[in-house]
Amino acid sequence: MTRSVGSGESVRLGFATVDIGREQRQGLPEVVYGPGKSAAEITAIVSVLLERSTGPVLVTRIDPGEADAVLASLGSGSYDRSARLLSWRPSPPDLGWRAAVVTAGTSDGAVADEASAIARAIGLDVTDIRDVGVAGLHRLLERVEELRAADVVVVVAGMEGALASVIGGLVAVPVIAVPTSTGYGAALEGVTALLAMLSSCAAGVTVVNIDSGFGAAMAAFRLTRTGARTRTDR
Amino acid sequence: MTRSVGSGESVRLGFATVDIGREQRQGLPEVVYGPGKSAAEITAIVSVLLERSTGPVLVTRIDPGEADAVLASLGSGSYDRSARLLSWRPSPPDLGWRAAVVTAGTSDGAVADEASAIARAIGLDVTDIRDVGVAGLHRLLERVEELRAADVVVVVAGMEGALASVIGGLVAVPVIAVPTSTGYGAALEGVTALLAMLSSCAAGVTVVNIDSGFGAAMAAFRLTRTGARTRTDR
Amino acid sequence: MTRSVGSGESVRLGFATVDIGREQRQGLPEVVYGPGKSAAEITAIVSVLLERSTGPVLVTRIDPGEADAVLASLGSGSYDRSARLLSWRPSPPDLGWRAAVVTAGTSDGAVADEASAIARAIGLDVTDIRDVGVAGLHRLLERVEELRAADVVVVVAGMEGALASVIGGLVAVPVIAVPTSTGYGAALEGVTALLAMLSSCAAGVTVVNIDSGFGAAMAAFRLTRTGARTRTDR
Amino acid sequence: MTRSVGSGESVRLGFATVDIGREQRQGLPEVVYGPGKSAAEITAIVSVLLERSTGPVLVTRIDPGEADAVLASLGSGSYDRSARLLSWRPSPPDLGWRAAVVTAGTSDGAVADEASAIARAIGLDVTDIRDVGVAGLHRLLERVEELRAADVVVVVAGMEGALASVIGGLVAVPVIAVPTSTGYGAALEGVTALLAMLSSCAAGVTVVNIDSGFGAAMAAFRLTRTGARTRTDR
Amino acid sequence: MTRSVGSGESVRLGFATVDIGREQRQGLPEVVYGPGKSAAEITAIVSVLLERSTGPVLVTRIDPGEADAVLASLGSGSYDRSARLLSWRPSPPDLGWRAAVVTAGTSDGAVADEASAIARAIGLDVTDIRDVGVAGLHRLLERVEELRAADVVVVVAGMEGALASVIGGLVAVPVIAVPTSTGYGAALEGVTALLAMLSSCAAGVTVVNIDSGFGAAMAAFRLTRTGARTRTDR
Amino acid sequence: MTRSVGSGESVRLGFATVDIGREQRQGLPEVVYGPGKSAAEITAIVSVLLERSTGPVLVTRIDPGEADAVLASLGSGSYDRSARLLSWRPSPPDLGWRAAVVTAGTSDGAVADEASAIARAIGLDVTDIRDVGVAGLHRLLERVEELRAADVVVVVAGMEGALASVIGGLVAVPVIAVPTSTGYGAALEGVTALLAMLSSCAAGVTVVNIDSGFGAAMAAFRLTRTGARTRTDR
Amino acid sequence: MTRSVGSGESVRLGFATVDIGREQRQGLPEVVYGPGKSAAEITAIVSVLLERSTGPVLVTRIDPGEADAVLASLGSGSYDRSARLLSWRPSPPDLGWRAAVVTAGTSDGAVADEASAIARAIGLDVTDIRDVGVAGLHRLLERVEELRAADVVVVVAGMEGALASVIGGLVAVPVIAVPTSTGYGAALEGVTALLAMLSSCAAGVTVVNIDSGFGAAMAAFRLTRTGARTRTDR
Amino acid sequence: MTRSVGSGESVRLGFATVDIGREQRQGLPEVVYGPGKSAAEITAIVSVLLERSTGPVLVTRIDPGEADAVLASLGSGSYDRSARLLSWRPSPPDLGWRAAVVTAGTSDGAVADEASAIARAIGLDVTDIRDVGVAGLHRLLERVEELRAADVVVVVAGMEGALASVIGGLVAVPVIAVPTSTGYGAALEGVTALLAMLSSCAAGVTVVNIDSGFGAAMAAFRLTRTGARTRTDR
Repeated sequence: MTRSVGSGESVRLGFATVDIGREQRQGLPEVVYGPGKSAAEITAIVSVLLERSTGPVLVTRIDPGEADAVLASLGSGSYDRSARLLSWRPSPPDLGWRAAVVTAGTSDGAVADEASAIARAIGLDVTDIRDVGVAGLHRLLERVEELRAADVVVVVAGMEGALASVIGGLVAVPVIAVPTSTGYGAALEGVTALLAMLSSCAAGVTVVNIDSGFGAAMAAFRLTRTGARTRTDR
Repeated sequence: MTRSVGSGESVRLGFATVDIGREQRQGLPEVVYGPGKSAAEITAIVSVLLERSTGPVLVTRIDPGEADAVLASLGSGSYDRSARLLSWRPSPPDLGWRAAVVTAGTSDGAVADEASAIARAIGLDVTDIRDVGVAGLHRLLERVEELRAADVVVVVAGMEGALASVIGGLVAVPVIAVPTSTGYGAALEGVTALLAMLSSCAAGVTVVNIDSGFGAAMAAFRLTRTGARTRTDR
Repeated sequence: MTRSVGSGESVRLGFATVDIGREQRQGLPEVVYGPGKSAAEITAIVSVLLERSTGPVLVTRIDPGEADAVLASLGSGSYDRSARLLSWRPSPPDLGWRAAVVTAGTSDGAVADEASAIARAIGLDVTDIRDVGVAGLHRLLERVEELRAADVVVVVAGMEGALASVIGGLVAVPVIAVPTSTGYGAALEGVTALLAMLSSCAAGVTVVNIDSGFGAAMAAFRLTRTGARTRTDR
Repeated sequence: MTRSVGSGESVRLGFATVDIGREQRQGLPEVVYGPGKSAAEITAIVSVLLERSTGPVLVTRIDPGEADAVLASLGSGSYDRSARLLSWRPSPPDLGWRAAVVTAGTSDGAVADEASAIARAIGLDVTDIRDVGVAGLHRLLERVEELRAADVVVVVAGMEGALASVIGGLVAVPVIAVPTSTGYGAALEGVTALLAMLSSCAAGVTVVNIDSGFGAAMAAFRLTRTGARTRTDR
Repeated sequence: MTRSVGSGESVRLGFATVDIGREQRQGLPEVVYGPGKSAAEITAIVSVLLERSTGPVLVTRIDPGEADAVLASLGSGSYDRSARLLSWRPSPPDLGWRAAVVTAGTSDGAVADEASAIARAIGLDVTDIRDVGVAGLHRLLERVEELRAADVVVVVAGMEGALASVIGGLVAVPVIAVPTSTGYGAALEGVTALLAMLSSCAAGVTVVNIDSGFGAAMAAFRLTRTGARTRTDR
Repeated sequence: MTRSVGSGESVRLGFATVDIGREQRQGLPEVVYGPGKSAAEITAIVSVLLERSTGPVLVTRIDPGEADAVLASLGSGSYDRSARLLSWRPSPPDLGWRAAVVTAGTSDGAVADEASAIARAIGLDVTDIRDVGVAGLHRLLERVEELRAADVVVVVAGMEGALASVIGGLVAVPVIAVPTSTGYGAALEGVTALLAMLSSCAAGVTVVNIDSGFGAAMAAFRLTRTGARTRTDR
Repeated sequence: MTRSVGSGESVRLGFATVDIGREQRQGLPEVVYGPGKSAAEITAIVSVLLERSTGPVLVTRIDPGEADAVLASLGSGSYDRSARLLSWRPSPPDLGWRAAVVTAGTSDGAVADEASAIARAIGLDVTDIRDVGVAGLHRLLERVEELRAADVVVVVAGMEGALASVIGGLVAVPVIAVPTSTGYGAALEGVTALLAMLSSCAAGVTVVNIDSGFGAAMAAFRLTRTGARTRTDR
Repeated sequence: MTRSVGSGESVRLGFATVDIGREQRQGLPEVVYGPGKSAAEITAIVSVLLERSTGPVLVTRIDPGEADAVLASLGSGSYDRSARLLSWRPSPPDLGWRAAVVTAGTSDGAVADEASAIARAIGLDVTDIRDVGVAGLHRLLERVEELRAADVVVVVAGMEGALASVIGGLVAVPVIAVPTSTGYGAALEGVTALLAMLSSCAAGVTVVNIDSGFGAAMAAFRLTRTGARTRTDR
């Protein structure tokens, strides 16, 4: 029966139902969202994923203390503190897909770190460009060639999020905008940047959730599912 | 008693209390907001203003039909259809203050028309720069010298309103941002542009109400109250 | 100077500044947004685009009456009434990129029509799948193979927008979610679907503005800028 | 006089007016909401309820420390830490009403724990199904028979809340949707899931407040007031 | 394959995919939402439903003109103008389930009419109680016995929606609250009543979408799927 | 039984339940809200009220055409077009309670007209003060003595609603603030004035719904229920 | 000059400008809002008020530690911990004005405590009625006579705030509704109760800010400015 | 190339791209926003700015501990605790531009402190006027001459923000309104004051972000870029 929706195997742990078929359906094992799970629960889920899949296994938004506990239990894996990411079996960067991860300001750095670290762990070739917001436009214009060399540009910006529109007008490839909660008052915890990016005058910019470096990296990965097939199937 | 708040004379018309002292306090007679007033009411108010003040008399946001009725009753005045503005005794443009009124897109034109027409009627020297939104950044960069020649830049933009931040970073003089209701969906009838402009990463940009070309022109006029004194008093 | 931001030629029409460089920068001439422009203005802009570029020229969200006036003035072009789209020089569908445009309900049809018509006009090969919302899940499951055959899936849904998450979990390729204003009350004119799609539990789904079939088609086109290079440059 | 609204007896404690008639009117004693009440106040209220009613007495959302103090004062009762529930005299599960409590993700577990614990305490027969969100649809489809065996399905989901619509389309019995505050950014602390569930394309899904496992359990209990009568009165 | 989600037959009409399996899965054929569909489309869908199912066929929110066109094409069916409902093959009211549909004010009448008409068409026995809002509480208290005689109470109220809480405290059976868009200003088109009902101090009240008499009737019908089984299976 | 909530008589008209006891409980017959009721329904309700009560009978927010129909059916009553109010048996202004109704601008006039007309019809002695908004503060300061002579001040203001705070600081008596939907953009249809008035720095200002001249008049009337007793009972 | 707005004396402390004229203008010295002021600042302001006025001096929302520091510095005054109120020279309760302060639930107690304590300190005769929310309506109906004996009723309620409407329909005198932040989720930190109270179907209910027991007490005090004059001046 | 947008030099520090050209473009070096940056990062950025520019170098919103670390590393600079501002090389106050910084209440003091301290550091001549909110209007009227002596008035107010409108009507020069998060409940963390100021009935008031003393000071500085030129160029 479960074949009707593709590779549908799953493992029930009581508190969780691990989706074993995801790697076959989507090219990557399920990524574990850390918040709200104990180290023991994470350890159990990661164990299943390591055993029942072959690709990179990731846990996002996990604090150092809990990360240490998981690493100790499993005896393997590595932790990236700035990205708050636990990883096992990262992909080699051989897919030939280049992502530029760009921030408007220094304080957008943590979200960009998450996007870059995950993108690298799942096999993308990442270029980081930081603090090139539109208040000093020449900082961005100096980097246009780097932006144009990418297959996909992830734009990470808070406050008014104007950088997404400006880059959207400068490059031809997919632009994935990540609004951040940087700013105060009228920035409304990232809602303003979110709405602004969705209303962008640059055609074809797409948007993921506030502060979701994870979402942007995964959206970038989806592109490779197309390109990969393009090169081989046709 | 009323001297305590400056030139406080007023004329009571029953449905309205005309503020006669405003010209002395602020340099311009009261500007009449058209909506919700009958042609007869507008005529009565304008008559008082023409009689009891000496500067330009303006009625904003008035439709052609009602404008015609007022013009017919009073036997003077002129109507600017694109700006929906009735005016009497416009100031000559001799104040030496230059305002640039810039739009992001063609559909922001009506709001810019109101800003420009009022600014001209109250004595500013206005340069119009249209449709230089950030999706095609070179259109703006071609005009930077014109922007820098102004004493104040009024930026009229809807959707994500990014143009205000970009210009805010390019010029040193006051930037007055006017969010417009251009756009749909997440543009939220101008609220998104408003919030974005308030959250601008360019320091010292100020903002007026959505679609308020009038507010921007009046804010620009306030600058002249400072400059004028600067040249004469000090 | 304008070379600093790429092919930056522009043509000033007074009411508009046509971005001539966009075709070189992004692979397509500027697409004209119809609302708020007169037939004469649209005719003038389209004339410039036809003369100064070589690819498809499009005007979106234009009503039949105004479309007829433009077509009459220019003596060429065609109008798609359901998509409210004027077009000249549509691309042949030879890029080898397949897009599936899927709706949750019949009333999402108009937005999907816009997405499909634009996508076809700019050279994508489009499959339409209609009315497969999650209240009758088997309707969607019957079409999984068609979805998986696409390079990109555009999901058009109003109300709670759940279809985007379900499809996001079923396919590996990019999923571009278009929230629609279908529904009433708590659907908040599409804001609920928008927020829901942004909060999707399916990783890597990206979102465009409410009712923006145009935005989805353009985002899909950006994918081809990557893939095209992939096939030739590497 | 108070008979006019049914069994209206009450006990005044100064800081509270305990509704003694509720058990007769609605089949259960008043359930005590813990937050904002001291252990002494809770003890006093519970004492009254134990004395003046016969059914289960419950205190919700109470932390371990305060729970211990209440248990110590009263010398009876038990505490469920995951559900944060104090209870006395739980009903035996003999009503013959089966409720399925289903979550979309692991982090919705705490709300589901509250729903399940209260439902059990008031006599429902509960089946827990966890972490079957729509990103891995087969996990849900594997459980359809279990869902269809229930008299009522409580769906606990945060983020975009899509699970409620999918289940709403799969089962015929009442579906009570509980939005949770799981997620971040556009999830708006559960408001997005709430709005999405209210806008569900699956007909006849009903919704309770965000994170209100309590509300869902009580709504499920109301069903038994109908069924119970059905079996006996007709 | 489609058997995995129950009776999954469907009929593709191009613009729509009619869910034929719904009657078997949920006890009623798909109900057609009228807005945004042409008379021809509605006629086509209704024809399929009449042919491939046996229960009541309904079209909601349809205006008189369009309703006449559909009735003329099909040569059967009847139209309820106050409920804006087209129906064929209504169920006989023999299920033994009694619903009370109660309004707070006269202006909530149209929503209540929709709820009552649909509920009757699908076999419920409906009692209408109108205009018993809490500003004149005695009007409600006079009707308490009627309310308590029902198996389910649908409470239709706009403005502050207080009636749902009051009734929720008076009856033991399920209370389905329908917020309406009655009121102005702070009533926010029904959002205030919606939020208020979700925040009800009466435990176990559930809520459907604003103005959704349809949703309430369908939620009431779901109760019968439980009760019906209860009486026969156990 | 209904005596438990005071004079609880009511008359059931099917579409309405007229609260006959309201005059005894609150000093005035029920006021009829016009929107959403047909002329026939209004006529029926007014007939009952005229027959079963003795005080003023009012219908609010009724358009001229419908008002004429009601007046024709009943053969009595009068209509105030600016206040959109139908009335029968207005009270004589002999209660000795003076209300000042003040507006910030001319466009707040319609709401003030409703407040004044109803207040007069129910026996208050009303002074109208119009267009004394804070942009020309001296206009207000000229009227302070008139304000201080009132027993209650109703402040009607849109946009930022600042007038309520200023008057709240100038007078000692009750200030009832009525936000209006005057303004545009950030005025948010009156929500901004509403929030501002609720956040007033002047202590003890109270607020009614947006545009609710009716609510203010009724709140003013409630004061007389206190004062009247004060003068007689003590 | 300052006489133009009444008794306008003030004392400048650098960080504050104490309004000495308020007692003469409004019958009470300025009430000090505690948050954001140091004990030293509060001490300085209170000293001025004690010296330059004769009535009660109050500081609201002050924590025990800071209150102790102020009391120690000044050597007089008393602190009410539940109301978080510091007071000097409370008025004797001889004004003959009776206020009922009513809560819907136990958790609304703190706001009611503030209202009651301030009302008593400024000379009102207060009756406290607690925990009579509409989920157990008989608790309220038992107290109707007490409510009707008051000159003004302050209704303190969170969640859906229905109690204000019910009481508004039961009593004739002014009803001042205080929404509280009690509740969670859809209660939106008190916004829902606020909107609901403003949309009340009971005519003439007025509303103050969320959790503002202070605002309600001051609004009640304003009533006495009317009544007091009524008894003496006329 | 970067000359196309003015003096565009920049220094890349990896985590930041310091905009060296800003001093030439806008008259002041980049101001550093403190939050989210480590003391080491701030030290590095400040070092670059001190070396590569000549004007005042500022770091805003920095806490004492971090400020001490930066000061220790650099061996120069000074810290203003109330304004939370680090500064090096403040401008002498010789520009001849006078700014009045006015607050409505004592609790708006911190925001005003930031505005004043920055304004002074960048060369404006600042007058502080505190606690003159409209509830005691005479406090403001006593200061009108001081207000009128300024070239620009910064109005800092929370709650309903009415002070901006009142001052906007009293002075002719630019008024920059700074909404603050002072207040609670309906004040919505400053959003209410923000919306109110944007909706001001006083023409030409402009607004900056909530709590942004920094934004107001920078907007005031922009005025000097106009005036300075006025005096020298014309």
